[in-house]
Parts: sequence; structure tokens; C-alpha cells
Amino acid sequence: MKPINIGLMGVGTVGGGVATVLKRNAEEISRRAGREIRLTIASRRNVEMARDLVGPDVTVVADPFEVVNHPDVDIVVELIGGDTVAKELVLQAIANGKHVVTANKKLLAVHGNEIFARAQEKGVMVAFEAAVAGGIPIIKALREGLSANRIEWLAGIINGTSNFILTEMREKGADFIDVLKEAQRLGYAEADPTFDVEGHDAGHKLTIMAAIAFGIPMQFDNCYLEGISKLEGKDIQYAEELGYRVKLIGLTRRTEAGVELRVHPTLIPEDQLIANVNGVMNAVLVRGDAVGQTLFNGPGAGALPTASAVVADLVDVTRLMTADPGHRVPHLAFQPDQLKNLTILPIDEVVSSYYLRIQAVDRAGVMADITRLLAENGISIEALIQKGAIADGSAEIVILTHRVVEKAVNKAIAAIEALDSVAGKVVRLRMEELNG
Amino acid sequence: MKPINIGLMGVGTVGGGVATVLKRNAEEISRRAGREIRLTIASRRNVEMARDLVGPDVTVVADPFEVVNHPDVDIVVELIGGDTVAKELVLQAIANGKHVVTANKKLLAVHGNEIFARAQEKGVMVAFEAAVAGGIPIIKALREGLSANRIEWLAGIINGTSNFILTEMREKGADFIDVLKEAQRLGYAEADPTFDVEGHDAGHKLTIMAAIAFGIPMQFDNCYLEGISKLEGKDIQYAEELGYRVKLIGLTRRTEAGVELRVHPTLIPEDQLIANVNGVMNAVLVRGDAVGQTLFNGPGAGALPTASAVVADLVDVTRLMTADPGHRVPHLAFQPDQLKNLTILPIDEVVSSYYLRIQAVDRAGVMADITRLLAENGISIEALIQKGAIADGSAEIVILTHRVVEKAVNKAIAAIEALDSVAGKVVRLRMEELNG
Repeated sequence: MKPINIGLMGVGTVGGGVATVLKRNAEEISRRAGREIRLTIASRRNVEMARDLVGPDVTVVADPFEVVNHPDVDIVVELIGGDTVAKELVLQAIANGKHVVTANKKLLAVHGNEIFARAQEKGVMVAFEAAVAGGIPIIKALREGLSANRIEWLAGIINGTSNFILTEMREKGADFIDVLKEAQRLGYAEADPTFDVEGHDAGHKLTIMAAIAFGIPMQFDNCYLEGISKLEGKDIQYAEELGYRVKLIGLTRRTEAGVELRVHPTLIPEDQLIANVNGVMNAVLVRGDAVGQTLFNGPGAGALPTASAVVADLVDVTRLMTADPGHRVPHLAFQPDQLKNLTILPIDEVVSSYYLRIQAVDRAGVMADITRLLAENGISIEALIQKGAIADGSAEIVILTHRVVEKAVNKAIAAIEALDSVAGKVVRLRMEELNG
Repeated sequence: MKPINIGLMGVGTVGGGVATVLKRNAEEISRRAGREIRLTIASRRNVEMARDLVGPDVTVVADPFEVVNHPDVDIVVELIGGDTVAKELVLQAIANGKHVVTANKKLLAVHGNEIFARAQEKGVMVAFEAAVAGGIPIIKALREGLSANRIEWLAGIINGTSNFILTEMREKGADFIDVLKEAQRLGYAEADPTFDVEGHDAGHKLTIMAAIAFGIPMQFDNCYLEGISKLEGKDIQYAEELGYRVKLIGLTRRTEAGVELRVHPTLIPEDQLIANVNGVMNAVLVRGDAVGQTLFNGPGAGALPTASAVVADLVDVTRLMTADPGHRVPHLAFQPDQLKNLTILPIDEVVSSYYLRIQAVDRAGVMADITRLLAENGISIEALIQKGAIADGSAEIVILTHRVVEKAVNKAIAAIEALDSVAGKVVRLRMEELNG
């Protein structure tokens, strides 16, 4: 059979990885796909640098539109990132009747509904395994491997930078800012780390997973984002003393009231496997009504792991491109006319358990006041420990609550902060057992 | 589109689970598959019991051949097990042009080459996600999700009974026979547990995974099997003191000399996630040249987890049944004319690290003799500890070796056992870092 021609837009780290994998594993890939998959044309503004990465057999151009408009290209790989020119290119490729493989989570989380609708009209595939959790085939697992299930929830460590920082903070007892500097030095964090450490990146990935898990449209605007930059080392340490690890978790759950869609630092019991996923590794824990809980773990970023996902999509698209579009795997797991626009719950309607740290000043009755305010707001206490002595003015009260709606906790916190016997703000972290 | 009719052979625990999932999640499944997937006919010798499990809408017959020969059935699900009548039924279904979904690992590991060849000739699919690791979509991950990779090795905890027993032995410091009785009482072990605890079941599953990972035919006869029934609690305890957990691992690795294919108790570093997979859970760790290491974890057995895999296969087959056979995912991941019959290494040619426990009697020079015999066989020592005092005759020497070919270790052990200063047999366990 004739080879499949790939056009690659964006030849950076990952693009170089794709070229490497396609070349190095050419034999295995064609033994699997039944035909050769070859990189034909690639684009990067700096043509010389691209040529170094893709080798002499590939035509290199500066203008990515030459790639999407090239008549010989069967599948376009978009690795430019962002949602401006990348969006134009992807829509142009679709209009040209070309299949698209992309690692661009932002593009899909923000403009996915439009892109998939266009692809549907044109009968082309848009594959995006590399957009979530790098080399872990989690999109395929959710869309195909667990298709018998009513997915109840999923929770992921889906930002390697944040997980590296949290791991270091725990292991070294260090503060966020110091570990961030180390991560930047090692190349695990960008010069401007906002996108990673404030949860935006995880929110994009979570939005995509929620869509395919529940059969809902992409709605990143409704995703709650809270990052790790304000986390203090002492809360990680107290959590550990209580048997928990703190992870930046993207969590989406189907409830009677609506779909939870939230990214925030979360206490997880240390005996959960996902609590022990450290460093830059990613993991996604999925709860389905039939399968129970399955965990998928692996490298969430990097040139070759991401290329692994891109090239797997190329093999998939190659296999399915001759099938009639009605019998391919639907882009968002559910048939396009079967998406349901479920409500996303506002964060203060979410039910969770909580970790609270309260700075008590030297005054009798503070414990009685706090427990009374919690009780008045319907919050029951699972554990309570006092750190330090009230006598020297440095006492802290750490409380773990049972499950309760977030607005009740916010109300209780406001009342606690108003007590004369309490100083400063109450530290509030969410806690999830991730068990059933 | 017209519904897909399923014929189910074998309505026991898992068959009942399949009926439950198809009914309970009918809406989600048809939203995904694009058409209804309905159980039409089911067979079990005891028709009444089957009727209780599948409900009143399904025709129940005693003779499974009525199912495979039924003109309305599109896909046959084989849950009878074993490789006698089940083989006949599967071959008959294929001859009748019906697609097959099976959870039967023994059938595939022993007769898979014949079955897949027949299916290929007839242009039908034989799907078998449920045959390995229950609800974990590991077949799909190996066959599709990681298709960009040259798979280097994979290691799995793929027998829940054995993992439950090992977990209990460790946590309670109990002996194999006592834990086995508990497992039997809880329904986690059969009355005759041989198939599970001696590695046969794991060997079947490993054989299937090796075939799709490396593109080789099924060759269960060459799989090395060593179970857990002779394991002593003290070795689990000593391993733990050295930072290792003992797991029944199925491991297959591609080497220059051939493919390793082996099931045996294995020491795994406790900081590996897979070392912390406990109870009846399963997990498979896969090493690919591009992705690095990915871990897949979840329930390896049970009615609903297994049904999750069976029904996912039904959705897959439904989606792909109209595609031309040349463009479906190949049964064994690689195109049928692209399998390579790589040599399976005999166990004594395998390279591993080893844990050795030697019973020393009260005599000077025993340590010198042992270390000399190891050195003479080219075996270097990574760690050595002495347990108990030689003075009271109960001293044990525990040694961890560096990597060495197994026949050298066997030779050294024979020489050590021949020493007057050593009593009884040397305990020998293999050890794998599973890291690169």
C-alpha cells in the first residue's frame, strides 16, 4: 500500500521527537500500521534548525500554510501550540480534507467544539492523545478501553511541573519559591511558570478528559482553577503527619446537581497509589461503574513520550482513514449528536472534605469557639490536632472535616477569621479520599 | 442503525456481569457506539440459572452451538473457559462469519495462532481485552496506545489470587498455607488453587501480552512458570528489610539473545509503584523506547471489571465491523504477515539479579567459602546480611547479587549446597529493578 505522508507544523522539542520516533521505529510502525508512515514536509520559521531536527529526507519550509495546503499530505501534525495561528492552521487543514493530529490542549479546551464540528462536517479525524498526559494513552482508555462504563469521576496529576515542585517541597521541606527556582534551572519549569503552577495547563487537560468521559462539550471557562504558588511547606508537612500527600489534582465528577470540574491542591491518602506518583510523572485515576478504579501512570511530557502519543495517533488515523466516518471512534467518545450539555457546578456548590489550619492567639475558649462555628455550619470534624503551644502565641489548630458543601466551609471560615482569638487567614485545602 | 445482536456462551459470574452492564449502561453504550448493542441469546446447561442472570428479554438455550449457529447473532461472546468445547465453539463461530469476543486466556495462549489464522481467513475479529488483567485496558494500550514504540519489556502482576496471598503474607507475617485457606474462604482462591498459585494463569496472560508487544506468535509452551506455594514468610520479611517487595511477576523482555518469557516470585524495589499494588489488584508496567515506563493498574478479575472489558470489545467490534479487514487493528498488533518467530530464551540463559538465603552451620570460614564460590562463578555481591548468630546454629546469610546469567547462579548454588558448613537447600529468588 502507498505510504502515508505526514506534514509536521512546529519542529521544536516534540516535533524533533516525532521525527526521531518515525525514523527509528519505521519498521515496527509499518509492521503494525500495514503501510509506511513517513514525514514528508515540516515547517518552522527557522528552517535551518528544523532541518537539523528532521534530517535531510524531509522538505522543510518556513510557512506552515504550505504544509496544510500541500496536496500530498494525508495527515497534518500541529505542534505549534497556542490558539491563534494554530487554530487557523487546523481549520484550514480540515477544510482541505486532511486529518489532524495535535498535542494542543489549549486549542481543544477552548475551541474544541468548533474544531470537532468542522471535522465532523468534512469527515476527517482530529486525534489528540498527546494533548493530555503525554505518553500515557489515557484518551484512548477513556474513549475506547472504558467505553462500557458510566464514568463516575476521574482525578489526575496532569501537570508535571507542579508535581515536581510538590514532590521537592515535601522531600526537602522547602518552600515553593525555592523549589520553583530549582525546577527552572532543571528545565522543568518555564521562566514564566504561571501557566503550569496556577493550574491553567491542568485545567485544559481536565476539560478535555471531562468531555470524553461524560459526553459533554468542552467548557474550559467553567473550570475552577487554583494553583500551588500559595502553598506553604508546613501544610504539606502537617498533611503528611495526618497520612496525606498534597497533589495538584484535576478532578471531574458527575453528581446529581451537575459536573464538578476543578483543579486545586488536594490532600490524598498516602496509601492511594496516585498519592505516590512523584516528580514529573503524571497519572490519571478513573472510576467507572463497571470497572471500579483504574490508574494510568507515566511520563506526562518530554520529547519522546509526547511523540509516542502523536505517532500512536498517526497509526490510528492511518488504520481508520478508509473506514466510513460513521464507524470511526467519535472524537469525543460519544456520537456527535449525543453530547449532553450538563451543568458545571460552581465551586461553592462542590462537596468535599477540607483541611483547615487556624492560627490561634493566646486566649482561653478559642477551641470552643471554633468547634461551635463549625457545628453551626453543619461541618463535622474528622480529626483535630494542635501544633505548638497556645501559651507562646504560635499555636496552630489543624482540622480535617467530613464531607460538606464548600459554601458552608467558606461561611464557617469567615466567622472563624472574625474571632478575636484567631489571627490572620485560615488556610483551607480540599481533601479527597478518591475511593468509591 | 439496526441493533447489534450478541450471543453469549457461558452465563456464570462474568456472563451475568456482561448482561448487567449491557442493560444498565445501554444508553451510554449506544451513545458511544452509535447503535444499540443488545444481548439476544445466551446459553448455559442450567437454563434456569442463566435466566435469573440475564433477565426475561434474552432467549436462553442449553446448547452453546445454538448460539454460534444462530443466524441473527452478529458477535459471539465466549465465556465458557478451557480449551476443549470453547475452542470448537470459537472456530465454529469464525467459520460462520461471526465476530468473537472472549475472556479465555488459556484458549488464546495455547491455540491462539490457529484461531487468529482462521479469523484472518474469514475476515472476522477476535477481541480479547478481558483475557488479560480484567478491567484494565492493557491489550488496547499495547496494541494501539503504545504503537509508536519498540516495546523493550513489560512486567505484570496479573494474577489476583497470588497477589492477595503475597499481600497477606507480608502484612500479617503469615505462611502461604494459612493465607491460602483465608483466600479460599473469601472466594479469592479456588478449591484447587494450582492454576493461580503455580503461575499457569499468569503464564497464559503473559504469553498473550508478549505476542502483541513484540509481534511474535503465541508460545505458551516456552513460558517458564514458577509459583508462590514454596515461598516462606521469612524471605518476604528479609526482602522487606532490604527495601524490596516480593510479587508474582510475569516478565517478558526482548534481548539480543532472544525473548525472556517467565513467571516467578520476584523482588521489586519498594519505591516502584508496581511494588505497592496490593490485594487482588493487577498492574502491568510497560517499557517502550519512546514513552519510557507506563503503568496500568486496576481490578484484574470480578464480574463487573471483566464485563467492562468484554463490553468495550463489543463496542470496538461494532465500530469496526463495517471497515475492510485490512484496515482494522490487527489481532496481534502487527499485521498477520509481519509476525516474527523470535527465540524464547531458556530460563537458565536469562540474566537477572538474585536474592539468596543460605543456612550456615556453626563453623568458621563459611562466609569465606560462600563468597569465594560466588566469585568463581562471576557473581558479584550487591548486599550481604547475616541473620541470627552462627553460634546457636541458626545463622542465615542473605545475599543480593548483581545481574548475572542464571546458569552461573545455579552452578554456584550447587557448590554452596555441597559445603559442609551449609545445611539444606539455598533459597533463590529473582530480583528485578524494573527501571530502564
